[in-house]
Amino acid sequence: MRARVYVTLKPSVFDPQGRVVADALVTLGYGDVKDVRQGKFFEVELDGADPATANLSAEAQRAKAETRVTEMADKLLANPVIESYRVEVLE
Amino acid sequence: MRARVYVTLKPSVFDPQGRVVADALVTLGYGDVKDVRQGKFFEVELDGADPATANLSAEAQRAKAETRVTEMADKLLANPVIESYRVEVLE
Repeated sequence: MRARVYVTLKPSVFDPQGRVVADALVTLGYGDVKDVRQGKFFEVELDGADPATANLSAEAQRAKAETRVTEMADKLLANPVIESYRVEVLE
Repeated sequence: MRARVYVTLKPSVFDPQGRVVADALVTLGYGDVKDVRQGKFFEVELDGADPATANLSAEAQRAKAETRVTEMADKLLANPVIESYRVEVLE
């Protein structure tokens, strides 16, 4: 089972890296670029053969994976003080 | 008009950062994590009031934005030698 976690800075947090990218794009001739925000994402591959979930329905396994990955994002992948994140379970 | 560019290392390229994250997750008790790949994404905001595109249909404006953002990704946002990218025009 695979899941993706998209992490972005909250809109109120200044993003200097994105600012630099936006300025570089304007310099390259893309004058219509107003703003760029940079974020990161993680593609997490979970072992589908986990005996604890093997006898659950596909829907329940998916929900369980989503809960686990949200927990991972909260604990390690994102800094909830300045970042927000979105979890997407793929298959 | 907003577009997102998702940049990931090509599957054949080793991702040490993702490896470290995967190991950290296993240490935190998520033993079912098999692998993590890390990528980045850019949210690009384009000026919709560009006079060069103002009299095009919404569909044509969208297609034009996609072409421009793909060009940006190729020139600046991604390194096509080791990274692949995906462009998504939002509105």
